[in-house]
Amino acid sequence: MARNLDHVMVAISDPTRRAIIGRLARGPARISDVAVPFPMSLTGVCKHVKVLERAGLVRRTRHGRENTLKFSAKPLREVAHWILQYERYWNTRLDRLEEFFTAKQEKSQ
Amino acid sequence: MARNLDHVMVAISDPTRRAIIGRLARGPARISDVAVPFPMSLTGVCKHVKVLERAGLVRRTRHGRENTLKFSAKPLREVAHWILQYERYWNTRLDRLEEFFTAKQEKSQ
Repeated sequence: MARNLDHVMVAISDPTRRAIIGRLARGPARISDVAVPFPMSLTGVCKHVKVLERAGLVRRTRHGRENTLKFSAKPLREVAHWILQYERYWNTRLDRLEEFFTAKQEKSQ
Repeated sequence: MARNLDHVMVAISDPTRRAIIGRLARGPARISDVAVPFPMSLTGVCKHVKVLERAGLVRRTRHGRENTLKFSAKPLREVAHWILQYERYWNTRLDRLEEFFTAKQEKSQ
């Protein structure tokens, strides 16, 4: 479980992979369609997709000659669970006061 | 901002670094105290701390001869924000039904 948490966190740490997730969250797509907006080779995109698959964030099914990719959100739940245990640390009144004074300082500069 | 998101996600993708965060969330500590539970050299722990510092998750202050480390949770808020945009994908009724039937199947096996 913790091992997979590592894989999922590494998978989402790359902006291209986060963009692929964003695309697939809108609906399943063929890998060649997913690749269109990225300034890299199809092989490069395939490598990113493999990292996402290893983390369980993308599932691949064969349709005719090409693979269809589907987003699977569940592994993100575990990451959210780990992060949200620290929510109270960024949600304290002190933090909000600090933000208020920093913003005030920045304005007056 | 997205650059930092990458750093934070990489920082939390390692179990040792997550454990250091867990320790510092209980209160500030000297690096030598933080290092105690880990089966690695102080240099190894220092490297992990540097990754956490780069991500803004740990702040270091000098106290006499040794550094004190402090947890800073704010960068996690941004990660939580990114992840929680996909919450509805793992919270759908379909997912819950799927879980229910998988659990039922496992029980009957």
